[in-house]
Amino acid sequence: MTHKKQLVIGIDIGGTNTVFGLVDESGNCLAQDSINTSDYPLVADFVAHVSNCVKELMSVHSGAEFIGMGIGAPNGNYYTGSIDFAPNLKWEGVIPLVDLFTEYFDFPIKLTNDANAAAIGERIYGAAKYADDFVMVTLGTGLGSGFVVNGNLVYGHDGFAGELGHTIVEKNGRDCGCGRKGCLETYASASGIVRTAKEFLENSNNSLLSGLNEITSKSIADAAHKGDKLALDIFDYTAEKLGFSLANIVAISSPKLIVLFGGLAQSGDLIIKPTKKYMEAYLLNIYQNKVDILPSKLKASDAAILGASALAWQNS
Amino acid sequence: MTHKKQLVIGIDIGGTNTVFGLVDESGNCLAQDSINTSDYPLVADFVAHVSNCVKELMSVHSGAEFIGMGIGAPNGNYYTGSIDFAPNLKWEGVIPLVDLFTEYFDFPIKLTNDANAAAIGERIYGAAKYADDFVMVTLGTGLGSGFVVNGNLVYGHDGFAGELGHTIVEKNGRDCGCGRKGCLETYASASGIVRTAKEFLENSNNSLLSGLNEITSKSIADAAHKGDKLALDIFDYTAEKLGFSLANIVAISSPKLIVLFGGLAQSGDLIIKPTKKYMEAYLLNIYQNKVDILPSKLKASDAAILGASALAWQNS
Repeated sequence: MTHKKQLVIGIDIGGTNTVFGLVDESGNCLAQDSINTSDYPLVADFVAHVSNCVKELMSVHSGAEFIGMGIGAPNGNYYTGSIDFAPNLKWEGVIPLVDLFTEYFDFPIKLTNDANAAAIGERIYGAAKYADDFVMVTLGTGLGSGFVVNGNLVYGHDGFAGELGHTIVEKNGRDCGCGRKGCLETYASASGIVRTAKEFLENSNNSLLSGLNEITSKSIADAAHKGDKLALDIFDYTAEKLGFSLANIVAISSPKLIVLFGGLAQSGDLIIKPTKKYMEAYLLNIYQNKVDILPSKLKASDAAILGASALAWQNS
Repeated sequence: MTHKKQLVIGIDIGGTNTVFGLVDESGNCLAQDSINTSDYPLVADFVAHVSNCVKELMSVHSGAEFIGMGIGAPNGNYYTGSIDFAPNLKWEGVIPLVDLFTEYFDFPIKLTNDANAAAIGERIYGAAKYADDFVMVTLGTGLGSGFVVNGNLVYGHDGFAGELGHTIVEKNGRDCGCGRKGCLETYASASGIVRTAKEFLENSNNSLLSGLNEITSKSIADAAHKGDKLALDIFDYTAEKLGFSLANIVAISSPKLIVLFGGLAQSGDLIIKPTKKYMEAYLLNIYQNKVDILPSKLKASDAAILGASALAWQNS
């Protein structure tokens, strides 16, 4: 009797694209595909189409045993299995996503938000393997986070824990999309660093960034790599906000490790080194020189699927 | 065959006094005593004396089954069972307290810091019964905290999690005993509110507090109860700092409940109402009107023993 290979399915739903694939226990993405989320104004049509596409991928690996599905989505609630009022998706209100997918599959299906999925992915396949206490920070358009404590993700009493991006780092600071002011994500994110660049450029034209039509976190990183003083100052400013906030959360959960993921994290040492410097400077002495800040070890092209798929292993 | 009544022992070690007692499963403190901690410059003498006193209490209840001992102490580390560099105790360096007590008793002995002990006490006997996700905040001379997530206390990778008092609420704010500036406990604690009163009194003499020789959190509360405007402003200022910090931690762990304990918490609605108001104002919308702030339900005179003793039930 041969032992069947076990696989899980990961689905990452974004406002623009939805990507999905089959993943083995080592974190290899064996097959993947994507569709355009915004092509489906009705969620029922979306679920039907994704399910059919997933079944096609599964049919190619019919010798495997499929033990579960994990879904990462904005505002995905682990407890209820629903997407609640996601501002970047066309489907309004509360969407019972797990129930909808359950009509197509007979294995366990779990949902959480994208940052929590990334945290579990990092723990199962990536930089946080064997870490029972760590924090995942995703520096994309916004700033997402997932807190792992005693080996378990922190969901809170209502499933909404882990919104580090919406802790306030500057009272009366920058306007945030959430309607408040000074949230960390208005400073420390791909969009936040661009806002900083635009502010800094108002008082300087002596920078490689001055002549650009469009400024992105990547163009700021490119300029910084070339030694551009203003670009380096922009990273330093961003890192001070992030390092300050990380020092405060270390005093709460005392993690062994903080993993940075996403567009801005791809700047590597440009963001990690000054963030670590500021974090240490703001830390209470008992925490100093104990907490690593590392970049994600998930392959960028597969990371979203891997993160979502990791949910399925956790609950198998 | 009669079923023996189960009891645990709780010991709370403070810089001035050490209190200890026998506690039943309902949180009744059946016998208690105290000694002067600072009378024992050698920790071995202290442990010997406390152990003898505890055994005397136990001998009066010899029909009971003693199933464990819990100890709360400043800088008590749950993982190592030692007190590490506690600034308010005479014993310097790392004190292997659990090992020392184990020479006198043959049941399990657990140690944690006083705020964590208070959190467990509140969960087993008090205001956080049945709450799997809550935060305990002790507003004494300093500000201590214990975070409970998924029903378990958050110790962090090194046992030092939960130092909300040393999160920075004002960059370049008040000097803190830890050597840094702007820690929450320099504002929101019994000593913090006295500092605020002294600052406010420099610009006002139209207050019941103006004529006092010594200002304490109790005298500020007394004045506020009489409608003293300055005293009410002092509470409002304190509550703004605390409410801001609580809003930020709600975004991390999404607790159902925040329990306030200690001298300043005894001011009741004077501190709780404005703290709740500011917390709500600073909260992200998904958390609004979901999180209760309640005073401790542990009887003040027994609370320290109850908190420490609760550790013993948790691990039995």
